[in-house]
Amino acid sequence: MKPLAVSMGDPAGIGLELAARVWAERDGDTPPFFFVGDADALERASTRLGLATPALNVVDSADKIAVDGEQLSILSVPLAMEETPGAPDPVNADATIAAIEKGVAAVRAGAASALVTLPIAKAVLHTADFGFPGHTEFLDHLTQDMPWQQARGPVMMLAGPSLKVALATIHTPLALVSKQLTRERIAHVGRIVGEALRRDFGIEAPRIALCGLNPHAGEEGNIGREEIEVIDPAARSLRGEGWQVADARSADALFHDEARKTYDAVIALYHDQGLIPIKTLHFWDAVNVTLGLPIVRTSPDHGTGFDIAGKGVARADSFRAALKLAWEMAQRRARA
Amino acid sequence: MKPLAVSMGDPAGIGLELAARVWAERDGDTPPFFFVGDADALERASTRLGLATPALNVVDSADKIAVDGEQLSILSVPLAMEETPGAPDPVNADATIAAIEKGVAAVRAGAASALVTLPIAKAVLHTADFGFPGHTEFLDHLTQDMPWQQARGPVMMLAGPSLKVALATIHTPLALVSKQLTRERIAHVGRIVGEALRRDFGIEAPRIALCGLNPHAGEEGNIGREEIEVIDPAARSLRGEGWQVADARSADALFHDEARKTYDAVIALYHDQGLIPIKTLHFWDAVNVTLGLPIVRTSPDHGTGFDIAGKGVARADSFRAALKLAWEMAQRRARA
Repeated sequence: MKPLAVSMGDPAGIGLELAARVWAERDGDTPPFFFVGDADALERASTRLGLATPALNVVDSADKIAVDGEQLSILSVPLAMEETPGAPDPVNADATIAAIEKGVAAVRAGAASALVTLPIAKAVLHTADFGFPGHTEFLDHLTQDMPWQQARGPVMMLAGPSLKVALATIHTPLALVSKQLTRERIAHVGRIVGEALRRDFGIEAPRIALCGLNPHAGEEGNIGREEIEVIDPAARSLRGEGWQVADARSADALFHDEARKTYDAVIALYHDQGLIPIKTLHFWDAVNVTLGLPIVRTSPDHGTGFDIAGKGVARADSFRAALKLAWEMAQRRARA
Repeated sequence: MKPLAVSMGDPAGIGLELAARVWAERDGDTPPFFFVGDADALERASTRLGLATPALNVVDSADKIAVDGEQLSILSVPLAMEETPGAPDPVNADATIAAIEKGVAAVRAGAASALVTLPIAKAVLHTADFGFPGHTEFLDHLTQDMPWQQARGPVMMLAGPSLKVALATIHTPLALVSKQLTRERIAHVGRIVGEALRRDFGIEAPRIALCGLNPHAGEEGNIGREEIEVIDPAARSLRGEGWQVADARSADALFHDEARKTYDAVIALYHDQGLIPIKTLHFWDAVNVTLGLPIVRTSPDHGTGFDIAGKGVARADSFRAALKLAWEMAQRRARA
């Protein structure tokens, strides 16, 4: 198995220090990884944390990466200017973007088994003509030409120790969610989730729960009709294809301990419906996973943390979990 | 302090057995209460649970109620027909409604200190010309003529051991939520919540959190404008009146352990936004509280449980918590 590629994210955020810390504290459970970004910036982050200067193996192309456990390999993407923790600068936007591109290229070239992305700040990248809402769409773009036999995402999933939740809509204003939900969209998301549970999570006969949109899942049409007209028909389509998906269930009754035992993943219809329960339960250690792409990609489930960057207080739980999950998913794909 | 009045709810549901069980298992922590409903039905529920037949003190008017710990007082509301657990019958709808009315009347007459309602089934009551969406609106109706110096509800709150969440809209189809939210409505709910936290929960300087409507609370207008145009202005109004309320916060970051320490109650803007976190955390022991009424009213946070009624498996946690909370609230009002 090739190592994981870790893209540096915004150098003014907490990404550098997370990478430095997890490398310094690596143990037998830490998957092998290399860093795609600026080697000096990583050293500076180590110094700010009071860690020993890491031994680095800085290379300029992915085929020169060697992972030996003693040296951290760096696929070099130099910053334009030294980072200031907490003060993002558009002058480094190109390097941030290039780190993602090189990370993807390393996976495509077979030099990395999966990509783990550290957080970016969309507002900063947009000043550099980054024409994508975020990582997920950019990764979709970078992998569009790769062959892929299954339903193509991207679908965003948040995965924690006791809950996996995928989103049918993501950054949609709440008032527009109902309009964006179609039978086709929900069924497509259902297929991607089902295939990913089998392929990437090793669940042979996945059970998928589908949230209702309205209070009490519409109470048989008394509180909204989307369940009857859109969501339940999508569930029927999926059942017709052999997936285990029940009709829309009341979202408020889906997330307590006993309910979570009844499914392997749940499809939420909008952002907060999925993110409220996952962050209530797993605020520190959930992982963002992109489903339905030809490459495996995970990321920590948090942002750049500009307010705490450089202070040494950022928790690495989610990044560690992202490394672990990417490694497991990549192993499953390699064995398939 | 007068005892609590417990209205029987739908006799085909789990209410009777909850009352029978909690009475049979009463201890020093169980607040004094009497039952408003059919005495024979309560005996039958005890028998079905395998409990000893309770000693009953059946009375026909609230002023004859005596609570001595040995006998359960019953303010009699006879059923039209013997109940069949799990099979609700509209013929008993009038008795179900009368039990609520007599419970309210007992509180108004000073014979009870608060009302705890056992679950009703709206669909059953509607066949009996019950013109209210549910308990809450009916109780509002029954107390409209009572003097009340503070902001008048009803506002629905779910209260669990680590979270109190109030709703700005309740049984509204999701696509209509945005239209129903106005500055006035949110500010009014905020006042009711703030006053209730002081008066009924004993929190002198309550801190209230306000959920955003859109993903990331709208991300400064990039994902919906309700935060800018409606929600934050409502928060400003409330702050102008002296309440501690911050602007709209990302709902997905409001419910984990650390976030919950930053407020005493949170206002959710729609049903699932509030009920998902409370039921994720406190599925069994949350209590439904009606805020802003001249009488104290709580209820267990679950329905009639027709599917499990009569089987002896219904958990009484939420009903016990509802009794306890009503008792605490009534004590605070009595001391004020």
